[in-house]
Amino acid sequence: MRYLGIDPGTTRVGYGLIEGCHTPKLLSYGVIEIKSVGESDRLLELARAFEKLIESSNPAIAGVERIFFAKNRKTAISVAQARGVIVSKLAEKNIRMVEWHPSEVKRSVTNYGGADKRAVSKMVGKILGVSTFTGHDDATDALAIAIATAFHYGTS
Amino acid sequence: MRYLGIDPGTTRVGYGLIEGCHTPKLLSYGVIEIKSVGESDRLLELARAFEKLIESSNPAIAGVERIFFAKNRKTAISVAQARGVIVSKLAEKNIRMVEWHPSEVKRSVTNYGGADKRAVSKMVGKILGVSTFTGHDDATDALAIAIATAFHYGTS
Repeated sequence: MRYLGIDPGTTRVGYGLIEGCHTPKLLSYGVIEIKSVGESDRLLELARAFEKLIESSNPAIAGVERIFFAKNRKTAISVAQARGVIVSKLAEKNIRMVEWHPSEVKRSVTNYGGADKRAVSKMVGKILGVSTFTGHDDATDALAIAIATAFHYGTS
Repeated sequence: MRYLGIDPGTTRVGYGLIEGCHTPKLLSYGVIEIKSVGESDRLLELARAFEKLIESSNPAIAGVERIFFAKNRKTAISVAQARGVIVSKLAEKNIRMVEWHPSEVKRSVTNYGGADKRAVSKMVGKILGVSTFTGHDDATDALAIAIATAFHYGTS
């Protein structure tokens, strides 16, 4: 079974795709870069790009991080709007969605809910047998979500 | 030209459709009631129902209320997710979207940004030549948004 992890954002949506829940194998990872200007066009671009991603990756379960009010209230609203598009697209394509709190992902991957980005990335590499990841952190975060999803909800 | 007003919510999305920007005429109003349980299913139900609404109402411009952190942070995130679905559907259908702050809608309809619900509803009725509105407040709010949209952005 394939597991997709998604780290929602307004201009960048991280994704990571793995296969298997016992010894997960890395299939792909990256970020959807949203280049449009303006809320409507950005959400539309996201909807289209995300639809393509789930069609090509064909996951059994998708893990999506929840939105919290970290530092900036305005960002939280925008990210939540993007997350709404992501969640509805998954439902439209009949893909099971599970939600993750960031600290649960960290705990699931490193055994410590307060782990920093470097520790998470290192453990993601170890689990997937990859020594270095290229590109943006959001993609590694998404792989961590995929691993947590596979470990907790996977059956094969 | 037709103008659609939308008042986003998680379980109820108010809508109001009018025609003409000088002497607007009421075409329809109501609420999309979301009955599904669970975030995914609710957002999917909304996406489908909203798509039907815009296909049947065929507006030139849609006015959508912005989300603010009124009382409850958790509600704001959920409503923002629903709003994301609404905004992306409008973009998908190539319908121009304009955003409204609640106080701007009130000012546009009653000339006073701090008007209460009853004053707004009364003025909406006066503008549209309707003595009473049935159903939920959310629909009357949406009609106020449609009127503000027609007054400010309408050309015919």
